[in-house]
Amino acid sequence: MRPADLHIDAARLRADIEHLASIGRREDQGIYRMAFSDGDMAAREWLLGRIEAAGLQAHQDGAANIHARLGWREDVAGVMAGSHIDTVPGAGHLDGALGVLCALEALRTLKESGLPLKRPLEATAFSDEEGRFGGLFGSQALAGQVTPESLHNARDLEGVTLVDAMTARGLDARAALHAQRPPGSIHAYVELHIEQGPILDRQGVAVGIVDAITGLFKWQVTLNGAANHAGTTPMNLRADAFQGLTEFAGQIDRVLEEHGGPASVATIGRVELHPGAANVVPGQAVFSLDVRDTDASTLERLAGAFQRTLAAIARRRGLMFEYEILSEIAPVPCARLVRNAVEAAVEKLGVDATHINSGAAHDAQVVAAVAPAGMIFVPSKEGRSHSSAEWTAWNDIEAGANVLLHTLHQLAG
Amino acid sequence: MRPADLHIDAARLRADIEHLASIGRREDQGIYRMAFSDGDMAAREWLLGRIEAAGLQAHQDGAANIHARLGWREDVAGVMAGSHIDTVPGAGHLDGALGVLCALEALRTLKESGLPLKRPLEATAFSDEEGRFGGLFGSQALAGQVTPESLHNARDLEGVTLVDAMTARGLDARAALHAQRPPGSIHAYVELHIEQGPILDRQGVAVGIVDAITGLFKWQVTLNGAANHAGTTPMNLRADAFQGLTEFAGQIDRVLEEHGGPASVATIGRVELHPGAANVVPGQAVFSLDVRDTDASTLERLAGAFQRTLAAIARRRGLMFEYEILSEIAPVPCARLVRNAVEAAVEKLGVDATHINSGAAHDAQVVAAVAPAGMIFVPSKEGRSHSSAEWTAWNDIEAGANVLLHTLHQLAG
Repeated sequence: MRPADLHIDAARLRADIEHLASIGRREDQGIYRMAFSDGDMAAREWLLGRIEAAGLQAHQDGAANIHARLGWREDVAGVMAGSHIDTVPGAGHLDGALGVLCALEALRTLKESGLPLKRPLEATAFSDEEGRFGGLFGSQALAGQVTPESLHNARDLEGVTLVDAMTARGLDARAALHAQRPPGSIHAYVELHIEQGPILDRQGVAVGIVDAITGLFKWQVTLNGAANHAGTTPMNLRADAFQGLTEFAGQIDRVLEEHGGPASVATIGRVELHPGAANVVPGQAVFSLDVRDTDASTLERLAGAFQRTLAAIARRRGLMFEYEILSEIAPVPCARLVRNAVEAAVEKLGVDATHINSGAAHDAQVVAAVAPAGMIFVPSKEGRSHSSAEWTAWNDIEAGANVLLHTLHQLAG
Repeated sequence: MRPADLHIDAARLRADIEHLASIGRREDQGIYRMAFSDGDMAAREWLLGRIEAAGLQAHQDGAANIHARLGWREDVAGVMAGSHIDTVPGAGHLDGALGVLCALEALRTLKESGLPLKRPLEATAFSDEEGRFGGLFGSQALAGQVTPESLHNARDLEGVTLVDAMTARGLDARAALHAQRPPGSIHAYVELHIEQGPILDRQGVAVGIVDAITGLFKWQVTLNGAANHAGTTPMNLRADAFQGLTEFAGQIDRVLEEHGGPASVATIGRVELHPGAANVVPGQAVFSLDVRDTDASTLERLAGAFQRTLAAIARRRGLMFEYEILSEIAPVPCARLVRNAVEAAVEKLGVDATHINSGAAHDAQVVAAVAPAGMIFVPSKEGRSHSSAEWTAWNDIEAGANVLLHTLHQLAG
């Protein structure tokens, strides 16, 4: 077989996707495979079976990440592809599962092709990407970012600790502290994922070559005015905290236009007014501000601009303001090595593709700390994500899987 | 004694105010005399004792309203002054209590003066003005507005029914259905109250001659857009329900300026976003809109303008909107008879006074349905109300009490 003839088995991939979609599914409510739940454990069991059936070598590391290995050897840096098979509650059938199964299918195809490979290959399913215990656990362990403290503190919304949840499954959580891969041992990491946004779907393009994964800052802002009787306080004698928030929210588009880039987004998703009664002028407004961009200096400029806007509004309206930084995640540019390989694969296959950024978090941005990492997106119907209505057309999945296959062959061949 | 020499006993009034303020008080938390609570019952007991001590006739009607009567006779329409002694939880020492005790002091003074009175006088404490069981219960009973159904349905936030609460105090709630005063039997009603707003305090004026009690409409508005991932959804592909609310809230001042009067106010005091997570574009915003004015046609114009503004914003932003009318209360002009008497009293006493509207609800607006009614305001320090920080200077209270005294003498003498 010539490399140009490499093509995944679309029927086999589809059968795998459909089978995995049946594991942890609740009638009419979507899929429940939260990390180390019954659904997740059944999916892991099934995945190990598929790896074995493909004649690939199965390996489970200290963070319970599952790896399917082809041509494994310790002395040559390997090429890794993967994602995760855990889900949010009520999930769709694609999300992380698609990236794991496309990687597995690529390895099966390469194995069957008999083509020579210079580097070992791994198809990986990372543990707890979705965040039952905080998220990105498996990739963080692989990148050496799990500490005894973070391991000890991780717990789910019901208070179950990660350590207890893993112990209950016969897994030793402390082994995650030793799951780090040696520096330089991963030549490249490639993750295929649904876009989780509407851009590819709107453009009718099958594949997105991901240039960067956005960073973000998330603030909790408090505006303090004076709570007053809504009937007896004239408009000009109010210090209405919600009106301050309203003016700020109305400035978001201007701030993004003046200080952001074309991909900058800002969202106020949570608002609490106090005392929160219809007949009381709000004395306090507490709200979230989530700002994202792929460029670190743009994020910095936006933080400054939002701060100045808040300060000016507060001063003019006689309000006090404070903000607490809830989280800050640095943007991660995708590695040139991987982007070039994806571009070459797209060109070779003649697939309709475009450059895009990832607005959501992925294992790839964690792995990027220890290896050149990149991503391939396929469209999400109407941008739907984390929902049982999540959907990608089968021909787009096939196109994406073939791009992944050829990307891996280029990186490892 | 000549009528011009009539003057209340400021020390006696102050002693009464301070004593009543001690009933139902919780250390550092303000006063708790919610209707038919232990505090309210103790205050009623004390008030009946003060009426008796003054040599006035005590009467309790079917709604448990307490009346102190001077020169009572059924065949001549009487002059009534009053307010309420129940409180919100954590209340200050003035609010309704001031109006009841100033009315009691006026009757004591008139009795002691020996001046002839053409009409009987009553100082009244209405039951549940503040709303443990819905509010304005006593005045509604007196105005014949309590129905078997409204009586049966009234319950507090804990689910205790008004009927059970009264029964537990040895009171027959059904008697409230027969507490209505015969038509024409009340010549005039005057209520002294703290302003509960900042206007008199800002102007440094002791007395407000109330021209009207504002009406209001209260809506619950729902804006529906689409919940989307805050990271993956570009700004121009969002249908952000909160941004719709923000634009609407930013139009409130314009709508009031274009369609309202000088006293119009509008407040958004309650906001709920769904799903309400920092990283999700809000798909739904539910909020309250409370709009008040003293003129019915102005309120109607404002309702139309706010509706058009909502519709335009929703259309432009691809949102759906609906609104539910939570309450509508018609504005009540104060009776010319009472306003003239208050103006005459102010002039006679040389008290610094101004015309003002009431932005809050009062028993007076209910009594207005069956009798000419009016109000006298004294300043609220910084507009504070329904708070243990509520405060009015003693000399302003004295001035207000004397205006009430001379108003009653003019109406009854």
